[in-house]
Amino acid sequence: MSRDPGLKTVVQIGIVCRDIEATAKRWSALLGIEMPTISMTDPGNQAGMVYLGRPSNAQCKLAFFDTGTCRIELIQPLGPESSWQDGLDKNGDSVHHIAFEVKDLAGTLRTFSEQGMPVFHQGHWEGTNGTYAYMDSEKQLGVMIELLNYEKK
Amino acid sequence: MSRDPGLKTVVQIGIVCRDIEATAKRWSALLGIEMPTISMTDPGNQAGMVYLGRPSNAQCKLAFFDTGTCRIELIQPLGPESSWQDGLDKNGDSVHHIAFEVKDLAGTLRTFSEQGMPVFHQGHWEGTNGTYAYMDSEKQLGVMIELLNYEKK
Repeated sequence: MSRDPGLKTVVQIGIVCRDIEATAKRWSALLGIEMPTISMTDPGNQAGMVYLGRPSNAQCKLAFFDTGTCRIELIQPLGPESSWQDGLDKNGDSVHHIAFEVKDLAGTLRTFSEQGMPVFHQGHWEGTNGTYAYMDSEKQLGVMIELLNYEKK
Repeated sequence: MSRDPGLKTVVQIGIVCRDIEATAKRWSALLGIEMPTISMTDPGNQAGMVYLGRPSNAQCKLAFFDTGTCRIELIQPLGPESSWQDGLDKNGDSVHHIAFEVKDLAGTLRTFSEQGMPVFHQGHWEGTNGTYAYMDSEKQLGVMIELLNYEKK
């Protein structure tokens, strides 16, 4: 199995939650880190979002905490048709994914797919400067993997 | 809220799974890391295990992967009466906790408890050289927190 060197390093733990302001406040107190800015993603239709093979207009609110190792990302879904909302509906406030940053996104997507873990939710952020892809890896690895790629498209 | 400086750094992501050999093999291929040794914890009765306020004799198999940031810990529960088995029963193969290593375990337990997140599963490893404590934090933080303390008791 060929692999991107980025697959060696967990860069992010993503947690979905119902109320990002309240959850971020508790994390802030726990970690001793100032309340982060809470941002909003572009609507899915502007961000090329595809979920379960169909375009989605979902959005989310985001907050990040640097923990010295990987970042903790809080995600509050807005609107249906995303793995964020479906994860929240299924498991309540819970870990949604862990992320790796890869250089060869196309090759890594192919490798995951060959291993029975196809992409099932993807999109861009900051216009089209970055791409994220969530892989259907929960059954095989016990957690959803997110692949991040920062190359300009 | 006073806090231990160890609360700034996530040191571990714990994942419960039904079949640690198969799951470790898939992680090994994904990360490009050799198959780790799979170890077995002492029976809970030898490790001072307490779960939901009562002694427990549960055990688990463990495997660790170093990812450059925090470690990924795979956990296969053996026997009932642990948050490992209950997590597996509830959510299937899934993230069980993220861990922080603290110096002042007693003080940190107190702080969590004051914030409405009491300890609900704890024990020792390597005889009594280390202590772990899982906090009832899922509702407030979206993930169970484990506190690790390596001081000799």
